Amino acid sequence: MDGLGMKFKAFVYVTLKAGYSDPEGETTAHALRGLGYSVNDIRSSKAYEVTFEAADQAKSGKLVDEMCRRLLTNPTKDDYRFEISELK
Amino acid sequence: MDGLGMKFKAFVYVTLKAGYSDPEGETTAHALRGLGYSVNDIRSSKAYEVTFEAADQAKSGKLVDEMCRRLLTNPTKDDYRFEISELK
Repeated sequence: MDGLGMKFKAFVYVTLKAGYSDPEGETTAHALRGLGYSVNDIRSSKAYEVTFEAADQAKSGKLVDEMCRRLLTNPTKDDYRFEISELK
Repeated sequence: MDGLGMKFKAFVYVTLKAGYSDPEGETTAHALRGLGYSVNDIRSSKAYEVTFEAADQAKSGKLVDEMCRRLLTNPTKDDYRFEISELK
């Protein structure tokens, strides 16, 4: 195991890159309009709340970025961003 | 249509309530551990980026809360939270 030590929580958001159509978002927007809401656009996305251990703060960001690229996202079609906070 | 006027963007996060098992999160955590990461726990969730119109700021929160309860979430098993910002 890599980087045991401090405990962190990361919120990772995975969205489709601009230009990729998002049928789930389009259908949801259509349904909300049918209910009477003035919805212009909806983009649907995935989110992950990851609790993990790392040696220090600097290392934690590197690890989450690696997890995103290796497993949590598809670099061809997804964009991602994340926020990390230390757990005491 | 209700509340035409100002334009807002809401980020809505939908997570399973505590106590509901999350097979996707568990499988993802297992896979990341297999790659060597010290992952304790992962909760997966859905997120929506909703662009919509409302009469004013106070009304915008009420509308998004209504959209969540009526369509975006299942109140029996989901928790949700949202952030709203005005679009200029």
